[in-house]
Order: sequence, then structure tokens, then C-alpha cells
Amino acid sequence: MKTLVRHSRAFFCALQILVIPLDAAEDPLPSWKDTGPKKAIVEFVGKVTKEGGPDFVPVPERIATFDNDGTLWAEQPIYFQAFYVFDKIKEMAPQHPEWTVMEPFASILKGDMKTALAGGEKALVALVMATHSGMTTDEFEKSVTEWIATAKHPKTGKPFTSMVYQPMLELLAYLRANGFKTFIVSGGGIEFMRPWVEKTYGIPPEQVVGSSGGLKYEVRDGTPVIVKTPEIVLNDDNVGKPVGIQRHIGRRPIAAFGNSDGDFQMLEWTTSGKGARLGMIVHHTDAEREWAYDRESHIGKLDKGIDAAKEKGWVLISMKDDWAKIFPEK
Amino acid sequence: MKTLVRHSRAFFCALQILVIPLDAAEDPLPSWKDTGPKKAIVEFVGKVTKEGGPDFVPVPERIATFDNDGTLWAEQPIYFQAFYVFDKIKEMAPQHPEWTVMEPFASILKGDMKTALAGGEKALVALVMATHSGMTTDEFEKSVTEWIATAKHPKTGKPFTSMVYQPMLELLAYLRANGFKTFIVSGGGIEFMRPWVEKTYGIPPEQVVGSSGGLKYEVRDGTPVIVKTPEIVLNDDNVGKPVGIQRHIGRRPIAAFGNSDGDFQMLEWTTSGKGARLGMIVHHTDAEREWAYDRESHIGKLDKGIDAAKEKGWVLISMKDDWAKIFPEK
Repeated sequence: MKTLVRHSRAFFCALQILVIPLDAAEDPLPSWKDTGPKKAIVEFVGKVTKEGGPDFVPVPERIATFDNDGTLWAEQPIYFQAFYVFDKIKEMAPQHPEWTVMEPFASILKGDMKTALAGGEKALVALVMATHSGMTTDEFEKSVTEWIATAKHPKTGKPFTSMVYQPMLELLAYLRANGFKTFIVSGGGIEFMRPWVEKTYGIPPEQVVGSSGGLKYEVRDGTPVIVKTPEIVLNDDNVGKPVGIQRHIGRRPIAAFGNSDGDFQMLEWTTSGKGARLGMIVHHTDAEREWAYDRESHIGKLDKGIDAAKEKGWVLISMKDDWAKIFPEK
Repeated sequence: MKTLVRHSRAFFCALQILVIPLDAAEDPLPSWKDTGPKKAIVEFVGKVTKEGGPDFVPVPERIATFDNDGTLWAEQPIYFQAFYVFDKIKEMAPQHPEWTVMEPFASILKGDMKTALAGGEKALVALVMATHSGMTTDEFEKSVTEWIATAKHPKTGKPFTSMVYQPMLELLAYLRANGFKTFIVSGGGIEFMRPWVEKTYGIPPEQVVGSSGGLKYEVRDGTPVIVKTPEIVLNDDNVGKPVGIQRHIGRRPIAAFGNSDGDFQMLEWTTSGKGARLGMIVHHTDAEREWAYDRESHIGKLDKGIDAAKEKGWVLISMKDDWAKIFPEK
């Protein structure tokens, strides 16, 4: 009994310490200006974590989902995964002499991305299939890990993992400190994200939902491998996002963060649930520190979302007006 | 600085408390006899959690996967999900007059399960599709939740959730207390398991991998819903298990637990990774307290697994000889 009391007291003391960072004057979201979006976040988190309050949500149900491209890291001039695809095509070209006369490969090899991508979705799928299937999952993971460690953004010259948004890193940490489980739900490739998101965002591979190709288990010369095959199992965009959420998480999020109309259904599914909900859209309004684009953009088009935000209660985050800082210092 | 020191000391004190249950004389696996399997578990956990040791595994990589039917709960005389299917067919029959003359439905309605299942996999798929698709995920969840709360096992008269294995409940808790993340990887339906496994096993819906049907997002009269459609997206059995693991978890487990040849590839994939690995097979050897079956069984057939165990280093758990208790007291 004595032992039990001693443990309980110590346990309470431990709990107190764990909550100190939230009670303290220290601001958990220093890169957010004291404008509407920050207030909406803090108010929402306060409500769902207030035990006994009308909006309290138990810890296991505190699920928050984040789009990746344009929401957690930049996406201009083109989704960063496309740079991986281009680099791989060049790397693989010696084994594919037919590519020198076959579109969209020929244009990629000539450095003419515009012509290459003029083929639209069909061209893109051909490029992704050529570079994202036919190898084992271990080989693909190694390839992405090596690439992300060395590749640089063509405009900023920075590693792609440095082009993540500091305010969103703080938001992820703030939510987790308040008992949330944070997930990525992205149109990007699930296997492309998993090798680096744990280190970059603190999100483990099992909390990544993304567009997914086929997988096949086989034993090669006594060694089990999983081979990536050229089917599409999930196109995790638009209506595919709630589907991916249900398939992987099996529970409706209470908070969702996106930046484009591809996130519309994820926000709609999240915020139409009962109880307190938070839906937020990162609006790219900062041509100086980042990029400014929305309704007319070929990447990360945000049109329907702007119009629907008010009616749906979604909060637009203006990068220019609401973020004190965009990228991490180094 | 003073604050930091105070926090650190308190944090250390908190850590100490957290590890006390493991150091104490209290046995975390009381329903396991002191035989080989228990020793193998304790030794494995000791190795992978020993900081600085040659087999140390960081917490995020401590992934353990568990089959469900026959591994976490019983599966005789037939998978429990089949009882749900039978009950639903009877419930839905008034809306389907054609079923009175259409197999396998007609036989189910007459209570003749043997004839109904004589149609093999085709019959089973027809039954599952009729009862597991066409409704929203919310409706299906409600249906399963209500059924599992009231349905009884035909032989024992107990609720199905009482027919879980006490030693495995202790194992799940023991692994989690040692930093493991526990997942279900089952041939059973993912949406059938999610409504009750959190309460029963402490495993949240996002850590459940199972056979999966199609899903479709749509807005019905202004309300977003996800509808279950009659495709099979994942047959999470045999070679489907490593595929399901990769798709949902994206990281190779370091420990896996199964009971039938349907778990062979999951065990193979898990234990062929580098470093310390644990593969275990629950062997149904107790005709008195549970059921005894293996090589010849139509449910949970275990044949290849017995032969391969020695060579692969997998540990067979004899329910009769290694478990002091099978089911929870009440």
C-alpha cells in the first residue's frame, strides 16, 4: 500500500512536469503571428483537451491529418517527387536505350520538362511507373533515402527537407504534446515519403497515408522480398483522401490541414463529424518569402476551397499575414 | 538552468517508476508456465530493450504483429466472423425473398451451414459481399458493435470477446510496456475487427490490418459518407500478410505471432530481417480447455509451419503444456 501511494505521488509529479510546457508562458507556436489562425488552433486544442468540458475528446480519438505537398513542405515549381522521378529517369537511361526516342522519357532526358509533362496524366503515370515499380521495397527505400540526402531545390539550392514550413513543424509538435496522433494524408507516393518523414516531421511510417502502388511478396533465392508492381491501389487525392483515411486509420480525424482543392474532401469528411472540429487551409500568399498562387495554379490549385471555407467553417492561413517565419533557420 | 535540472531529475524519477513493473518480482506473464516459450519471449524482450546491447532496437522500430483468429481469440468450430455473416443473412432475409431458393443463402436460412459452405470460397465470398458491402462504414460499424455485444458462441455460450486468450492479453501488455507498438494482421475483415479490438486487446483501429473491401466517398443529401463496395482490395492471408504489413505499417516487424499456415509468410518476412527477431506459433493442443487441431484442420490448418519451425527458429507454443490458463476468468 505504501508503495502504491509512493508511486501514485511520483506519477502525479511526473504528469505535472509533462504539462508544464503548456502552462508556461513559453509560446508553443512562436512562428505563428497572433492572428486568427493561431487563435483558432489554440482555442480548438483547449476545447478538446478540457476534461469534463462539452467538447472533450479522449486521447485515442485525437487524430489529426496533414496533407504534405504545399501544406508541410513547398511544392513549387512542381511537386518535389517529380524531381526524384526526373533524376531517376536520367540515372536509369543507360539501361533503356529506347527512351531516347520514346516520350515522355526523351524530353526528360533532353531537360525539356515542359514537353515531357505536356502528355498530362498519362505521361506522368508512365514516368512514375518506370521509376517506382519493378524494384523491391528495400531497394526503393534506399534509393529515396540517398536522393533526399543530396538533392537540391533548383531555385533555392536548399535540400528539399529544409523547405518544410516551420509553423507547421510547431503545430505538429503542439498537437502531439496535447495527445494528438499526427498522420500525413498526401497525394504523394506513400513509399516515397516514408523514408524521411519520421526524421523531418516526427511522423512514423505507419502514420503515412499516400498514393500507393501494388506490392507482391516473393522469395528470391531463399530471401523474402516485397516487389513494387505497376498497379495503382490508391490514388490518395480528392475523394481518395477520405478513402485512404478510412483504410489506414479507420477513425474520422477531428482536425485536418490542407492547401489545395485536392484536400477538399478530407476537410469535408473531417469537419462534418460530430463535436469540435478543425479544418485549415494553408493559402500561398507570400510571393516574397515563398510563392503566391491559388485559383489558377497548375500545382496545388485552390479554388473551390476558398469559396467553401466560410460556409464550412474552415480557417484560411495566409502565409504572408499569419506566419512570422516560413522555413526553419537552417 | 535550475528549472532544467529540476525537470531532468523529476523526469528520471518518472522513468524509474515506469520501469518498476518490469524489475519487480511481479510476473508480467502469470498465465504462461515457466517453459520454453515464456523464456523465449522474456529473453527476446530483454535483448532488444537493453540499451547499448548488441541487439538493442530503438522504440519506434519495436513493431509486433499478431494474427487474430486462433492466435488472439478462438476460431472453432468456424471463424467467428462467419457467425456474424449467418446472423446478418437471417436478419436481411425479409428484404431478399430470392434467397429462399438461391445458394448459399437458402441453406444458411435453413440452418444447414454444411451445405452452405460446400460451395467453398465462391459461396463464402457471396456471403461476405452480401453482408459486408452496400452500407456506409458508419452503419457497418454500428451493426458489428451491436452484434458483438450480444452474440454468443454456440458451444461455450460465452460472448465471443470472452474467448480471447489470457496469455496473449498479457503478452500484448508486456510488449507495450516495453515500448512495442502492437498490430493485428489478420485474414479477418479489417472493418469487422476495428469496432471491438481497442476495448478487447488495447489495439486502436489504426493498428489493425485485415482483409479489406472497396470504399467509396460520396455526399448523400449534403452528408458525406463512405460506402463499402464489393471489391477485394486486400486478401490479408498468406502472401497477403507481408503485403498488408508493408502497405499499412511500412516497416518490417521484429516479432510476429500466428497459429496457422496463413501466417507462414508473415513469420518468414518478420524473422528474415536483420538483428534479433521473434516468430511464434500458437499450437492448438488442448482438446479439454480449448480445441486440438493442426495438420488436418479445415480451419486454421497448421502443417507447413510445424515442419519449418525448427529450421526457421520459430517457437511453437503448446496451449496444453505452455499456458497455465487459456481464457480470462470471466
